[in-house]
Amino acid sequence: MALDGVKEAIRVSKPYKMVSRDFKEEDTAVEFEGVTIGGGDLAVMAGPCAVESLEQCLETARAVKAAGAHFFRGGAYKPRTSPYSFQGLEEKGLEILNAVREETGLLIVTEAIDHESLALVEQVADIVQIGARNMQNFSLLKRAGRSPKPILLKRGMSATIEELLMAAEYITSEGNQRIILCERGVRTFADHSRNTLDLSAVPAVQAVSHLPIIVDPSHAAGRREQVLPLARAAVGVGADGLMVEVHCDPTSALSDGPQSLYPAQFEQLMCEVTKLAALVSKVSS
Amino acid sequence: MALDGVKEAIRVSKPYKMVSRDFKEEDTAVEFEGVTIGGGDLAVMAGPCAVESLEQCLETARAVKAAGAHFFRGGAYKPRTSPYSFQGLEEKGLEILNAVREETGLLIVTEAIDHESLALVEQVADIVQIGARNMQNFSLLKRAGRSPKPILLKRGMSATIEELLMAAEYITSEGNQRIILCERGVRTFADHSRNTLDLSAVPAVQAVSHLPIIVDPSHAAGRREQVLPLARAAVGVGADGLMVEVHCDPTSALSDGPQSLYPAQFEQLMCEVTKLAALVSKVSS
Amino acid sequence: MALDGVKEAIRVSKPYKMVSRDFKEEDTAVEFEGVTIGGGDLAVMAGPCAVESLEQCLETARAVKAAGAHFFRGGAYKPRTSPYSFQGLEEKGLEILNAVREETGLLIVTEAIDHESLALVEQVADIVQIGARNMQNFSLLKRAGRSPKPILLKRGMSATIEELLMAAEYITSEGNQRIILCERGVRTFADHSRNTLDLSAVPAVQAVSHLPIIVDPSHAAGRREQVLPLARAAVGVGADGLMVEVHCDPTSALSDGPQSLYPAQFEQLMCEVTKLAALVSKVSS
Amino acid sequence: MALDGVKEAIRVSKPYKMVSRDFKEEDTAVEFEGVTIGGGDLAVMAGPCAVESLEQCLETARAVKAAGAHFFRGGAYKPRTSPYSFQGLEEKGLEILNAVREETGLLIVTEAIDHESLALVEQVADIVQIGARNMQNFSLLKRAGRSPKPILLKRGMSATIEELLMAAEYITSEGNQRIILCERGVRTFADHSRNTLDLSAVPAVQAVSHLPIIVDPSHAAGRREQVLPLARAAVGVGADGLMVEVHCDPTSALSDGPQSLYPAQFEQLMCEVTKLAALVSKVSS
Repeated sequence: MALDGVKEAIRVSKPYKMVSRDFKEEDTAVEFEGVTIGGGDLAVMAGPCAVESLEQCLETARAVKAAGAHFFRGGAYKPRTSPYSFQGLEEKGLEILNAVREETGLLIVTEAIDHESLALVEQVADIVQIGARNMQNFSLLKRAGRSPKPILLKRGMSATIEELLMAAEYITSEGNQRIILCERGVRTFADHSRNTLDLSAVPAVQAVSHLPIIVDPSHAAGRREQVLPLARAAVGVGADGLMVEVHCDPTSALSDGPQSLYPAQFEQLMCEVTKLAALVSKVSS
Repeated sequence: MALDGVKEAIRVSKPYKMVSRDFKEEDTAVEFEGVTIGGGDLAVMAGPCAVESLEQCLETARAVKAAGAHFFRGGAYKPRTSPYSFQGLEEKGLEILNAVREETGLLIVTEAIDHESLALVEQVADIVQIGARNMQNFSLLKRAGRSPKPILLKRGMSATIEELLMAAEYITSEGNQRIILCERGVRTFADHSRNTLDLSAVPAVQAVSHLPIIVDPSHAAGRREQVLPLARAAVGVGADGLMVEVHCDPTSALSDGPQSLYPAQFEQLMCEVTKLAALVSKVSS
Repeated sequence: MALDGVKEAIRVSKPYKMVSRDFKEEDTAVEFEGVTIGGGDLAVMAGPCAVESLEQCLETARAVKAAGAHFFRGGAYKPRTSPYSFQGLEEKGLEILNAVREETGLLIVTEAIDHESLALVEQVADIVQIGARNMQNFSLLKRAGRSPKPILLKRGMSATIEELLMAAEYITSEGNQRIILCERGVRTFADHSRNTLDLSAVPAVQAVSHLPIIVDPSHAAGRREQVLPLARAAVGVGADGLMVEVHCDPTSALSDGPQSLYPAQFEQLMCEVTKLAALVSKVSS
Repeated sequence: MALDGVKEAIRVSKPYKMVSRDFKEEDTAVEFEGVTIGGGDLAVMAGPCAVESLEQCLETARAVKAAGAHFFRGGAYKPRTSPYSFQGLEEKGLEILNAVREETGLLIVTEAIDHESLALVEQVADIVQIGARNMQNFSLLKRAGRSPKPILLKRGMSATIEELLMAAEYITSEGNQRIILCERGVRTFADHSRNTLDLSAVPAVQAVSHLPIIVDPSHAAGRREQVLPLARAAVGVGADGLMVEVHCDPTSALSDGPQSLYPAQFEQLMCEVTKLAALVSKVSS
């Protein structure tokens, strides 16, 4: 049994290769109609945790579009801790997302949880999301590396920056160079937020990798009132974008209601982060 | 669009159901030829991290069998942090494991990393392992719930006990009641071991669930010299079994060499834990 | 033996009292000549980790003053992990700090590590610092509560927000109401920064307490290149001030050299955070 | 200003010196009348969290003595998170502890929280305890290094093994060689126990230091039902002793009631750990 290829592989000393600045010095910019992630714009993705109905999505989508968001986020496939929790509307959810794009012109970002859902999601989504719990689902990462769509890769709850970049390397090594990283909080002893948002991940990634990185303050906070200050902090630290949970009626949300902003709160957030982003971009360049 | 089923589901207040002692009071015992996990025996699984060759496996298997192990462990599919690391011999690895069982009579435990590998693994393995990184790969858990083979479910690196039990609930809710949990260390700031072995997980699980739970000191420690004391501690705390990495030649192992025991060390371990297990079982019953 | 008083005390159900917004609704503003902490200003404290010599301090102090800092920070008493590391110049260090104030007009913030040093520090300092390792040195906290000087209380490396506020309660319950809290990073598994800066602590504290809270990005980062982005993030999240390590010659610093900014970097930082603070104050009020 | 001594000190590259096995190869054994810590015995310290009254202490002390404990533990000075919680009976508590020794012959271990209490505690105690929150109270450590009594040094809630050993180095560098380390759990995300008992600290310390190390399962667990299994695990891992909270009436305890064993439970614990210790000592030597 020839293990030569194997022996070769384990001799590679550098942990990451193609995602490194040594491999490609200039920032990777992932381009979309109207916004570029990683090119100086502040890309904003907003919407409910889960796609619940066409009405809920359209109402929320119109609100976030009016406030200036570029992408509509919403899960059709939901990786839930409990098998008895709402698992998403699945294919019907994807149909709804399609309708949202047609109605509003917003770009769509939504999660794939396995090979089967990825095959469906990549037909609808403008960005395919790999969630934090699947950050080291290497089989799924390889499949994502063969997708024609850009991939949003969320940092696992206890992943180091090196592991995050190695997960991205799984994708890029299969051919897909359009990867957007996302910091969404790590698990610590601290109990005043659901996870501890680790904003130092942004400059740490930017120092060694050319990939863009955005921040999700909603999943980190787990509570609405921290989302706006953390979004401002994310812009301050130099993130390339934000992913924010917004729901037209948070109290009736099927998941993540307590951390979802009301549309008016999101409008305020967009107003603040837009001004900040312009200033940060000016002072720090 | 009818969300009635959905609404019903989220009304369920108890986080876990079928894995709970409220559902089934007596301990679940998973029976094999020659050993029962969860029935008072100390089940021991031993072998290399990865299946590398027939010779390596047979040599190691004969040693662990002679020392008293019940199961041979070895990965044919390896979830590795780097896409450039050895990913396992895959189907050839499964053939080798089959040969090991035929030659030695040891039962086989090996990991599945996705739907495709699970379909192959369940034809060969006596226990199908779901690794720590896949503990919340819910799609894979559901598939494992439809497998005819018992499932060894490892605790994720930052999973709470409730999340571990909910992951087991995904399996059992699909019909597979034969689940063995495994504590393998959690990620903390501590740097003297690779992960921090959380032995309080054993009584914590036993208090609320009927499922058996074993301990893997090798992945927690990450270094050979801590494996024996931690194995004794695991027996002391009341674990139903141990999973230990043993390699006939650790210095040339393709993965996890530094934490793999030499066969003579494993023999010493078996000698110590067997006596301890007999005493713990006597004093604590 | 009468334990009645004791029984009374443990009946108190609220964990904190005088530091709570329930006790005092409006923000506490700690006033100094030229700047107020907690009143809308962005107070900036800058200087070396340790007072090493009059020359080093004066050179650094002139630079940070020119850049716009309000306070000079520098340790005369250094709590070091090793007994063989430089422990500070002690009383000579305090004399140097006195000279710095006289020469530059900068206010002085410096750490006390026990009762004895506190008695000396409070004669010189404008703010007495209690460090992270002493956050639950309750004997020292009580003594600080009887000091005539404001206290800067740093969050312990694994302290919850509730524990931080209870530590402040120790101070205020002895009579000293002028307390400034400081987030400086918590200990986690993450290895790309020395500690993980937990900026959500700022809105979390502000929601329940009237005390001002500042952020120390230098000790969190442990490396120079993350300090500026994290300082911007701290302003973005709404902190009342910053504490930043600056050294006129970081490569020869006796402690914390790698995280100390060069004077020119601090000037850039001040330029950026001043503009940001003005904007944040405008958009978020 | 001459910094030569300073420069010399920071040139020292080894983090710890006198506590290292390089400095002293053979195990340090701290001898007492009837038991030696670090010499192969399993030393057991038991008693309530706090000294509440002479009656409570005597009743508990007689029970733990009858069960085979060597030391009576009980706090006269209690470092409590809240200034409004019971802070200990202080000098009256020390008088009670004195009476306990005279009545029962048990050795006394009790905590000092500052210079002032240490001066009183060392007159009464056979072992002076420095608690987890004071592990890096370097001023107190230096004072403990000049005490004629042995010091029990508890690991801080987020201390690395290196930091624990450096804290011990502070003590030994002042002249006191009789130091006993204590693992009592570290702070993690896990919520099924109050802290996560890190038993790998025992072999990790033993590998590099000659100092004895004991385990406190009570403070780690925070709940009574985990104490016995964790005590067995501590013996299994090779600890030199145990510190266990026992109260004659846990439901009325002024602190730590939920984790205090009933006397009958402690008797069961002693019965189990004594047999285990004999076996571990036999099989592992």
